[in-house]
Amino acid sequence: MTAISAHAPELSVQTWFNTDRPLSLASLRGRVVALVAFQVLCPNSIAMAVPQARRIHDTFEPSDVAVVGLHATFEHHQAYSLPLLKAFIHEYRLKFPIGLDSANAEGPIPHTMDRYGMRGTPSLVLIDRRGQIRKHAFGPAEDLRIGAEIGALTQEAVPGADAIASAASAAQPSAVGRPPAAA
Amino acid sequence: MTAISAHAPELSVQTWFNTDRPLSLASLRGRVVALVAFQVLCPNSIAMAVPQARRIHDTFEPSDVAVVGLHATFEHHQAYSLPLLKAFIHEYRLKFPIGLDSANAEGPIPHTMDRYGMRGTPSLVLIDRRGQIRKHAFGPAEDLRIGAEIGALTQEAVPGADAIASAASAAQPSAVGRPPAAA
Amino acid sequence: MTAISAHAPELSVQTWFNTDRPLSLASLRGRVVALVAFQVLCPNSIAMAVPQARRIHDTFEPSDVAVVGLHATFEHHQAYSLPLLKAFIHEYRLKFPIGLDSANAEGPIPHTMDRYGMRGTPSLVLIDRRGQIRKHAFGPAEDLRIGAEIGALTQEAVPGADAIASAASAAQPSAVGRPPAAA
Amino acid sequence: MTAISAHAPELSVQTWFNTDRPLSLASLRGRVVALVAFQVLCPNSIAMAVPQARRIHDTFEPSDVAVVGLHATFEHHQAYSLPLLKAFIHEYRLKFPIGLDSANAEGPIPHTMDRYGMRGTPSLVLIDRRGQIRKHAFGPAEDLRIGAEIGALTQEAVPGADAIASAASAAQPSAVGRPPAAA
Repeated sequence: MTAISAHAPELSVQTWFNTDRPLSLASLRGRVVALVAFQVLCPNSIAMAVPQARRIHDTFEPSDVAVVGLHATFEHHQAYSLPLLKAFIHEYRLKFPIGLDSANAEGPIPHTMDRYGMRGTPSLVLIDRRGQIRKHAFGPAEDLRIGAEIGALTQEAVPGADAIASAASAAQPSAVGRPPAAA
Repeated sequence: MTAISAHAPELSVQTWFNTDRPLSLASLRGRVVALVAFQVLCPNSIAMAVPQARRIHDTFEPSDVAVVGLHATFEHHQAYSLPLLKAFIHEYRLKFPIGLDSANAEGPIPHTMDRYGMRGTPSLVLIDRRGQIRKHAFGPAEDLRIGAEIGALTQEAVPGADAIASAASAAQPSAVGRPPAAA
Repeated sequence: MTAISAHAPELSVQTWFNTDRPLSLASLRGRVVALVAFQVLCPNSIAMAVPQARRIHDTFEPSDVAVVGLHATFEHHQAYSLPLLKAFIHEYRLKFPIGLDSANAEGPIPHTMDRYGMRGTPSLVLIDRRGQIRKHAFGPAEDLRIGAEIGALTQEAVPGADAIASAASAAQPSAVGRPPAAA
Repeated sequence: MTAISAHAPELSVQTWFNTDRPLSLASLRGRVVALVAFQVLCPNSIAMAVPQARRIHDTFEPSDVAVVGLHATFEHHQAYSLPLLKAFIHEYRLKFPIGLDSANAEGPIPHTMDRYGMRGTPSLVLIDRRGQIRKHAFGPAEDLRIGAEIGALTQEAVPGADAIASAASAAQPSAVGRPPAAA
């Protein structure tokens, strides 16, 4: 994973599913965010990225890691509709928030996809607790590596917490059993 | 993963493969250790645990994570031999160190397996940089979860390093792209 | 597989893809037909039945076995559209004929699905060279068994051919290497 | 599958498992035989060919198709032993007959493997009801295709039966539901 340190652009979503109110990255600050861009008609999205998103959602504590799906409609625009996306989410039993990327009047690439410079679907973006992009990958990704990267990010200090305290926190990860107090 | 904080017992190995000299957990202190106990004739070991061990070995930096295989012969003793284990390692192209657990004159359970109270094969033990057991699981384990747990453990301070320095280190994980300097 | 001997009802399709002209079972008489009913939003259809249909199409000679897909829209009617089905077929690189089951003004179950009494998607119907239903299964089906059943059906005599001749033909299957002439 | 019409050489086995008495191809005449050559330390044998052999055994009627395993020890001779093979069969819950190919005093290739000209493990040989080789493949094989080939072979006339009668038999396969009597 190459070092990427750009601040994650805000999401632009025209319709949200699985959430009572619109989500923003700003509102998720302090949590690690796994942003999974997909399309219903993209074979690798359906066979790999969406099931992986579900596993991420099932594996991590919601207070540590937020999974956000993004339907980045950049092709076959006529095929997609809100009823389709709603039925898809129902049939695949997806429980994490999913946003429909905002259509762009000036071209086929929707706004969020454009801001992130995504190359296609599936794309995975990992955003740290401070809102920085730490990974941006196109195509299927291995579970072990993604798990490791998210696991590492969860150990970083929560912004706003006292520096020394957060360092201590980083040494006592919640994702694994706590070590005994240092001698 | 339940919190487990016992100090990891030292390995007892009668023959090592893929290493020039005998390994000890003491010599691996400072690194996260993934100890993978298996048997050549155990279907879940061969279908799942050994390939996962290889993926762990391929995914993490050796300076961060040491994968150690342990052939924990607790049944079918007559079937196993050094030539068998050697040929197995060759055919499966395994590159990480693998030890043959020391036979126990007093019963079928070899010494390391006995010390750890392993319930069978495959078993996975994760040991932190300070030599504490942080996970001990029997049976197949999911890649995403194991990746997350190892990834989190890699972010813990290396023992012996200065406290403030290790805190800084914890905030700048090697497993993921470095964040920009905090404002 | 239970013995089923009903004559296969004719297909009722409102739109065909991957074929120059509408297909009918009557026009396929003399070939074994694998009729695969699916829906784009049905997880088991997409993960298992559609890939299996493609493998059937790739494995058998078209002159022996015709694969026919049927989009049996019986739920989420609002989600489906011709552009969706067209884009799906394009993205999944499907080359065999696929028909959109005729909508039924009197209820949610489309006409072909209704005639066959299908219980849902995916469903697989195997029809022999004489137009008789020989298998009707709901849910995922194992490749080995389906292969065996289709392979056996291909060995049956083509209707209309002379009885003695077709018997000889049955003894010299095209799907496997020809045996030497009997002594 | 290329047409192969050689008469299948007799098996040469030094030890049999899962059978009360030694098997011979001669004694299996009248049945289709799936001969699966494997080695315990061959990754593709264990991951693919042995599970496929088990599926063949589970799918077809024993009176139609005989699955015969052959441990074709052509390398790592020191690693293999009768206790190893016995424990392997126990752990993998294999129920079909398995023979240990007869060691060859003149070289590493055991006798049956040598007679068939097998290129390695896994190898699959399909033998028809009359004892002719109809397929001989090296490496993993697809379930659908293997199922089709075995399914087709089961439809061939049993040798010794009356010609007209066997033709009728071929038109009434047991592997699929019987068709109604021809009009």
